[in-house]
Amino acid sequence: VSRDTLVRWLNEYLNVGAFKDPSLNGLQIEGTGTVRRVAVAVDSSLKTIQHAADSGADLLITHHGLFWGDPLALSGPHRERVRAALMADLNLYVSHIPLDAHPVVGNNAMIAQALTLQNTEPFGEWAGGKIGIAGELPFEQSLQDFADRVQKLTGEICLVHGGGRSPTVRRLGVLSGSGAGSIAEAAAMGLDTLLTGEPEHKHFHDAFEYGVNVIYAGHYETEVFGVRALAARLEDEFGLAWQFLHHPTGL
Amino acid sequence: VSRDTLVRWLNEYLNVGAFKDPSLNGLQIEGTGTVRRVAVAVDSSLKTIQHAADSGADLLITHHGLFWGDPLALSGPHRERVRAALMADLNLYVSHIPLDAHPVVGNNAMIAQALTLQNTEPFGEWAGGKIGIAGELPFEQSLQDFADRVQKLTGEICLVHGGGRSPTVRRLGVLSGSGAGSIAEAAAMGLDTLLTGEPEHKHFHDAFEYGVNVIYAGHYETEVFGVRALAARLEDEFGLAWQFLHHPTGL
Amino acid sequence: VSRDTLVRWLNEYLNVGAFKDPSLNGLQIEGTGTVRRVAVAVDSSLKTIQHAADSGADLLITHHGLFWGDPLALSGPHRERVRAALMADLNLYVSHIPLDAHPVVGNNAMIAQALTLQNTEPFGEWAGGKIGIAGELPFEQSLQDFADRVQKLTGEICLVHGGGRSPTVRRLGVLSGSGAGSIAEAAAMGLDTLLTGEPEHKHFHDAFEYGVNVIYAGHYETEVFGVRALAARLEDEFGLAWQFLHHPTGL
Amino acid sequence: VSRDTLVRWLNEYLNVGAFKDPSLNGLQIEGTGTVRRVAVAVDSSLKTIQHAADSGADLLITHHGLFWGDPLALSGPHRERVRAALMADLNLYVSHIPLDAHPVVGNNAMIAQALTLQNTEPFGEWAGGKIGIAGELPFEQSLQDFADRVQKLTGEICLVHGGGRSPTVRRLGVLSGSGAGSIAEAAAMGLDTLLTGEPEHKHFHDAFEYGVNVIYAGHYETEVFGVRALAARLEDEFGLAWQFLHHPTGL
Amino acid sequence: VSRDTLVRWLNEYLNVGAFKDPSLNGLQIEGTGTVRRVAVAVDSSLKTIQHAADSGADLLITHHGLFWGDPLALSGPHRERVRAALMADLNLYVSHIPLDAHPVVGNNAMIAQALTLQNTEPFGEWAGGKIGIAGELPFEQSLQDFADRVQKLTGEICLVHGGGRSPTVRRLGVLSGSGAGSIAEAAAMGLDTLLTGEPEHKHFHDAFEYGVNVIYAGHYETEVFGVRALAARLEDEFGLAWQFLHHPTGL
Amino acid sequence: VSRDTLVRWLNEYLNVGAFKDPSLNGLQIEGTGTVRRVAVAVDSSLKTIQHAADSGADLLITHHGLFWGDPLALSGPHRERVRAALMADLNLYVSHIPLDAHPVVGNNAMIAQALTLQNTEPFGEWAGGKIGIAGELPFEQSLQDFADRVQKLTGEICLVHGGGRSPTVRRLGVLSGSGAGSIAEAAAMGLDTLLTGEPEHKHFHDAFEYGVNVIYAGHYETEVFGVRALAARLEDEFGLAWQFLHHPTGL
Repeated sequence: VSRDTLVRWLNEYLNVGAFKDPSLNGLQIEGTGTVRRVAVAVDSSLKTIQHAADSGADLLITHHGLFWGDPLALSGPHRERVRAALMADLNLYVSHIPLDAHPVVGNNAMIAQALTLQNTEPFGEWAGGKIGIAGELPFEQSLQDFADRVQKLTGEICLVHGGGRSPTVRRLGVLSGSGAGSIAEAAAMGLDTLLTGEPEHKHFHDAFEYGVNVIYAGHYETEVFGVRALAARLEDEFGLAWQFLHHPTGL
Repeated sequence: VSRDTLVRWLNEYLNVGAFKDPSLNGLQIEGTGTVRRVAVAVDSSLKTIQHAADSGADLLITHHGLFWGDPLALSGPHRERVRAALMADLNLYVSHIPLDAHPVVGNNAMIAQALTLQNTEPFGEWAGGKIGIAGELPFEQSLQDFADRVQKLTGEICLVHGGGRSPTVRRLGVLSGSGAGSIAEAAAMGLDTLLTGEPEHKHFHDAFEYGVNVIYAGHYETEVFGVRALAARLEDEFGLAWQFLHHPTGL
Repeated sequence: VSRDTLVRWLNEYLNVGAFKDPSLNGLQIEGTGTVRRVAVAVDSSLKTIQHAADSGADLLITHHGLFWGDPLALSGPHRERVRAALMADLNLYVSHIPLDAHPVVGNNAMIAQALTLQNTEPFGEWAGGKIGIAGELPFEQSLQDFADRVQKLTGEICLVHGGGRSPTVRRLGVLSGSGAGSIAEAAAMGLDTLLTGEPEHKHFHDAFEYGVNVIYAGHYETEVFGVRALAARLEDEFGLAWQFLHHPTGL
Repeated sequence: VSRDTLVRWLNEYLNVGAFKDPSLNGLQIEGTGTVRRVAVAVDSSLKTIQHAADSGADLLITHHGLFWGDPLALSGPHRERVRAALMADLNLYVSHIPLDAHPVVGNNAMIAQALTLQNTEPFGEWAGGKIGIAGELPFEQSLQDFADRVQKLTGEICLVHGGGRSPTVRRLGVLSGSGAGSIAEAAAMGLDTLLTGEPEHKHFHDAFEYGVNVIYAGHYETEVFGVRALAARLEDEFGLAWQFLHHPTGL
Repeated sequence: VSRDTLVRWLNEYLNVGAFKDPSLNGLQIEGTGTVRRVAVAVDSSLKTIQHAADSGADLLITHHGLFWGDPLALSGPHRERVRAALMADLNLYVSHIPLDAHPVVGNNAMIAQALTLQNTEPFGEWAGGKIGIAGELPFEQSLQDFADRVQKLTGEICLVHGGGRSPTVRRLGVLSGSGAGSIAEAAAMGLDTLLTGEPEHKHFHDAFEYGVNVIYAGHYETEVFGVRALAARLEDEFGLAWQFLHHPTGL
Repeated sequence: VSRDTLVRWLNEYLNVGAFKDPSLNGLQIEGTGTVRRVAVAVDSSLKTIQHAADSGADLLITHHGLFWGDPLALSGPHRERVRAALMADLNLYVSHIPLDAHPVVGNNAMIAQALTLQNTEPFGEWAGGKIGIAGELPFEQSLQDFADRVQKLTGEICLVHGGGRSPTVRRLGVLSGSGAGSIAEAAAMGLDTLLTGEPEHKHFHDAFEYGVNVIYAGHYETEVFGVRALAARLEDEFGLAWQFLHHPTGL
């Protein structure tokens, strides 16, 4: 399929124009005009770009891109990343917040579905909108049993802060990546537990003082779902072969 | 000693007016007019404030305060913290960036001294200034041996990212707390290793792509030094008894 | 009635989310969980807070709150106000611009109703919206007779600047508090007279050069109506007893 | 003397470039090229401009000018003011903050001298600098006696808010015009009394809660001194005849 | 017709409130209250204002006004322009962006109509909206033949940059005045040719590197259409006589 | 010579840190580590980059770079420019405002020297500093004769706007590139003539209404001097061969 067709379809499907995200969502590096093979990954690190090129992909789709609001000189690691992609004629397409927030293939939508959340509603304020999901478990579960389910889902051990009034989970907020700043919002909505990715020292006390259980399942681990679901959707739509490039960070 | 004398001395000694820090550095809660006993801690959490009050302190000095730039309604955890201090007539004095950057009792100055850094220079840009320290070890050391020294200093296990061109340490940057964003600056200055507190997913690849070893010794663990050194300085100056309240976060 | 129920009702009834007001409208101090008795006042000064506490109120509702956009250290008068409320377990609820602008219990709506304004329309720009009311008297009146009516309404003497082309009142703008800056807007709308609260030197000449009669009835005097009407509405809705705490400023 | 010479001298003498004042200090309306007669006034209202023109002045110097930061269409009162000056070929020179703050002919310097303040220091923060003066009376005086002195100086009755811990004056802050917002600063500097021009409702409680006596001597009344002293200085320097145009506002 | 009626009609017809334009669109100088004769021009230079006054016009309508966001002292050329209008009691009405963007009498709408564009759509981003027009010619034309048509329309020679992939015109963007910054937008929309007014060095390479033909027909020449069409509309609506004052700049 | 040595020397010689310029002055594309041959040009267009690569240069120095404040996706012309440089391992060093303002090799310094300006002083405000030069010719010259001298210097025809009170040149301001916005500043400094590069419609009337002669010698033509003088300086310092790549824009 032609790259331009694919990019237009992605921009529309992911509703790119709706987010005030400094990540420059969309095609960040222009490569070959025809796409036959897709690779997806969480980060657009040098390793991931080289891996994608070596695997014969024409298009790499990542959650984290090259830019965060400021122009970058083509030197050091940024030069190496750009150079590796250009040498291989590899396209790089980036979808940051749109892929956290997407109602079908978003990171949070995928996690909420895997955990069978019910009566879901928007949660997790970001730049004037909400990009996460809150909902109810079908039955109450102990915090430990629930953390086990999350660990089975991600394959990694979670950090559990049992700040809630009781060690059980019923009303849950899901916010992929760096969501520790939303503990207060979870408390205000009456959620007993927050599932997010990365802990931050400056929000350590929030769990205990707002009385909310918090499960930190890893920034990387909570953000693998969106790019994989998006790739599967592309396979359905365009019959494209794809693979997921696993480069965990342990954070 | 009178509280007003103490506050004036602290503001001047820590050069509070020199920093564009939204933390509202200075006396954040006014308590009793005479200070006989001091407690110091990293965070001004509810637990720390109650501990300080129970220990009979008249003044609690912390690195992280109650405010980060916006007004807060007196409800939820913020209300509990303020209420606990007012009920105990406890003074709360906060010194954030000034206590990272101070040349004698600053977190970074204390760590640099403990690691016997030489030929030191400013490092770690923050709001137009530099608040950390770079320097040389007296002799080259393997990254692992150096990490062991850091672990002895803090008493906690470090996370080590061996991104540097060689697994040895000679030129080191020290930046307490959340300093992963300064890896590029370390590389530009020709440092082989950065010692900081808290890892961040979005800077994970920087260590490996800029070619810098990074030791994450803990946000909390790298920020206990300043408040303790400041308390010792107060003891010298005013003969005040003090204690350190240890409430680690594991982050 | 429970405090949380009451706060939710007030936030919705006053449409708090619709105003870009730095006053932190809503619950500013959290007190007892059950509200049996309400006090209302114009300002949240120390005197008003103490008066409310002494009168046995569980909730004080004021027009002017504690915050105007910046965080405040808990010292000096601000500490005394917070401390007095916390000691008495008194809730403080603040409604600034929402209570000027409310179509039923707003300061301007109440004054317009008392003066029997007809054919009313929005007037008084503030941060992109209009918070006052303009309209017509049922019959033309001399400026002096009209000022007498206003004085009967507030119980205080008015300052009258007869800048209008004729000393009569027919088309009136009402803007409680500090509204002298809207004389130009009144002229542009063809109003002959503006009724507001507080005079300002820098707008003194506007009355005479734009040709508008201006009646300054007092900042305090024009802002007693909203909190009283709101309290009466609470009595209807929840059967709560209330009283108005009168602490005039003479300004 | 030529207008251009005069304007250059005024800009330099008043140090116009040093103030971040949106008032467009300097020549606001260009008139005749030779100045033989000067008029000075507090405001540049239509009445003052016409009075200056009728009196045969070539240059009107005022404290308050035509602009406060935004462009104005040439319609309504603004058109009338500009038109009156252009018709009469009258120059209008404006000096706002520079004439509050000037160490010799400034409003505050003149008041401080008339009240024989000693050990003076800067007071009254405005846009990063201080434009008022604090100092000590040669002997302690009762608040009432001191207010009488102020009344003799201005010729008008003062509004006195006796918020101070004792009804006497020894350490005084002087801030012409609208200075009620500096009561907290006065308290922090240990002043017992503030002398300023215009009261504001929103700072009413400050006098009583910060414990500072405040004398409101009138916005207009406290700002007549600077323009008169400047005119006298011009007479010395250039031998120019001048008169003061008295148009009080009562505010 | 009365000036106030006319100004209200113009503000509404041109939808002045819809544009975030610092040009102070609307009546910029207030003149006589009754308008019998109208002059229109591109710029409000001294020459145009004097010409309008000499021709007996009561109202001058221009595309470029006196203000661009900052207040201006009444000195130098600005004083001369204002003075000339006030002396002649001439009204000055300005319509900048609203008159580029207007769907009927706008500069771009008029040019698109003269060139018989079909299937038109918005083009030319400006402050969040689009103020130009894109569309298709009824038949493909060589770039040179098309440039000849434009030259016949404006009466002036064009500067032609043949950067497009082929030297023909089919899909055209029209953006009056200074539109060289929109070449990238034209390429993204698949336009082969851009017609605008003024060239800029910093966008010289865009035509050749984005592959878009650009015809620079003159800033002045592309902005004569709107004011003339607006005047004709006023003649229809109010029966007013008018003339166009031609003062080309050659730019 | 090594690239890093050269870049450090350039950054220091051009005083890069002193300018608030969004152009990302410095090394914009990192190429080979050793520099043997230098090319210089005004613009970093695709044509210039290819020309530099074809000519065997290791380093291209330009006045206009790739970035103007915002991050750019690697697509379209920007991708082509970056790709061409990376493929050839070409370094790109950019110096925008620092090379207009430099006292020795700056565009304005070179022009002022060629025209034998005397008693020079700073002129041409840009972001809080002055980047051009004003001075006196050794003898008065007719505007036409002076324009001939400028034409000999640049080799191109000038556009001459004879707005000055007399058609002679004595006191001259020089501002390379886009300097039409400084006509008012030239008038205020008493200059009779401004020499700049690119005309702008919106400043057309300034020459005639402020009474200043303006010579527009071309944006490109006035900016060839700095890069050539800088290259000559590099030849002196490091013995590097260089050539100037001439790609005029005619603007």
